[in-house]
Amino acid sequence: MKLAIYGYGNIGRGVECAIAQNPDAELIGVFTRRDPESVKTLTDAPVFAASELDAWARDIDVLIICGGSATDLPEMTPALAKKCSVVDSFDTHARIPEHFANVDAAARESGHVALISGGWDPGMFSLARLYGSVILPDGRDYTFWGHGVSQGHSDAVRRIPGVADARQYTVPVPEALDAVRSGSMPELTTRQKHRREVFVVAEDGADHAAIENAIVTMPNYFDEYDTTVTFLSADEMARDHRELPHGGFVFRTGKTGLDQSHSHTIEYRLTLDSNPEFTAGVLVALARAVDRMAKRGDKGCKTIFDVAPADLSPLSGAELRAHLL
Amino acid sequence: MKLAIYGYGNIGRGVECAIAQNPDAELIGVFTRRDPESVKTLTDAPVFAASELDAWARDIDVLIICGGSATDLPEMTPALAKKCSVVDSFDTHARIPEHFANVDAAARESGHVALISGGWDPGMFSLARLYGSVILPDGRDYTFWGHGVSQGHSDAVRRIPGVADARQYTVPVPEALDAVRSGSMPELTTRQKHRREVFVVAEDGADHAAIENAIVTMPNYFDEYDTTVTFLSADEMARDHRELPHGGFVFRTGKTGLDQSHSHTIEYRLTLDSNPEFTAGVLVALARAVDRMAKRGDKGCKTIFDVAPADLSPLSGAELRAHLL
Repeated sequence: MKLAIYGYGNIGRGVECAIAQNPDAELIGVFTRRDPESVKTLTDAPVFAASELDAWARDIDVLIICGGSATDLPEMTPALAKKCSVVDSFDTHARIPEHFANVDAAARESGHVALISGGWDPGMFSLARLYGSVILPDGRDYTFWGHGVSQGHSDAVRRIPGVADARQYTVPVPEALDAVRSGSMPELTTRQKHRREVFVVAEDGADHAAIENAIVTMPNYFDEYDTTVTFLSADEMARDHRELPHGGFVFRTGKTGLDQSHSHTIEYRLTLDSNPEFTAGVLVALARAVDRMAKRGDKGCKTIFDVAPADLSPLSGAELRAHLL
Repeated sequence: MKLAIYGYGNIGRGVECAIAQNPDAELIGVFTRRDPESVKTLTDAPVFAASELDAWARDIDVLIICGGSATDLPEMTPALAKKCSVVDSFDTHARIPEHFANVDAAARESGHVALISGGWDPGMFSLARLYGSVILPDGRDYTFWGHGVSQGHSDAVRRIPGVADARQYTVPVPEALDAVRSGSMPELTTRQKHRREVFVVAEDGADHAAIENAIVTMPNYFDEYDTTVTFLSADEMARDHRELPHGGFVFRTGKTGLDQSHSHTIEYRLTLDSNPEFTAGVLVALARAVDRMAKRGDKGCKTIFDVAPADLSPLSGAELRAHLL
């Protein structure tokens, strides 16, 4: 399959690396809204101006769109789905129905397949929630995030006056994980599920106490959590906090049997050194499924819920049954 | 959807309970090769002789076949797939390709959908292996079973002279789980991955030392494992070992990034109070997907790899996207 990347940030670079790990995938190139001359790719993949996409669209089986969910993808994905089949990682959960409708209209009209919200949450975590709910209908699920960097919370701290740089880690509370794992189906408050660790580089002369107070009392972001704030130097930040680890847990616990006497726990856990590179791995596998769906004549907007798992793999059905079933 | 059960052992009873937990499913009845008068169902579902199936086949959307993999299912599933759409839990991994071919021929000829090898291994564990392999192609996977009862190993011990009853638990070794979870991709021997715990009720006057020696040296079943043997009374066996817990772990660990510098671990874990009731929950969800595939005009043999996750759920696509994605 011939793939291309639209947007070259952390996820775009991750997709470039992931394509190199999949022998059935070929990277046509990277499309950027920046000056192509200013973009140097990791694998020397060619770089094209976004405006050149029309000329290339016929040669691209699937375009992987690597933009931000706040403003990029709501515009980009419907527009690009008119040109070729696409995959995106739109992750604003509350706006998925609206994004789906917009992308579906564009993809149906042009006869392409467009898969939205690929990645791990939404994505693999969504699958864990769906599979858990259908196997154990009388039950409940719990999603925990971390240990990992939340970009949104880091950005919120960076907007506080006196903050030069910041990194926020979301940390699941071990006691809450154990309570869920026990199958007791506890009621857990926001504070009981996660705590937040913030690392801050302050500007010279800034009031540390005022910054800390502004963080821990910030509505929605921090006020409902136990938050620790640690000040450090720019050098320490660069040395100890340059990676983007993440992950988390999806649990489903439920009861079965005529008298509901048996309890079951399903746990799906991700421990990721690099959030964008893992996300990229999911996107490339989904691109394979999109390519197959498009070649079978399917069209319109899809999500990971619509993808038969066999379509994600380069192996044939017979190989999958013989080796992985 | 109108379901029926063929065979009324532990899994058949589990399916009966699972159908009661799914409001969109209706149980037509249980078909048995025994005298129907001798079978009392948990929910007062009607019991029919297996020979009556032809008269009912038109009213059944999906028949869930609850027979043993050694001799029942290789005969039953192809024969029954000629009459209606079916689901089975065939779990002899090495014979899946042969079983698939036989069932596929029968289902294609008769225009039905037949899904084989539903459950958790094969089944949910197979899905974990497939999803892991496509996201992290440069990696390896590890499957651990337990803590749980292995029926095959329990039966093998029961065949030893002097043994009145036996129960065998397969137990994953915690140090091996930790080594895998660390992402170090260890090489693990059979002995390092699992140990076996056997509980034996001996016949009066039997030689305990001889029984223990016969167990721990038994080729294939026990000789490659560290095995503990505990003798107990029939009353203790009935009191402490009447349940059928099971579960296990599927891990995928892999590297990403241009220099493979980032490591990731995916862990899928099941902790089950009742192996047959959890298996039954998977089978009923798969029956929903089979019903939909059949009503769309699909036919032939399928596995869980061919099932789009959305087809497992009673919720609509829009509901799934709004609440679970």
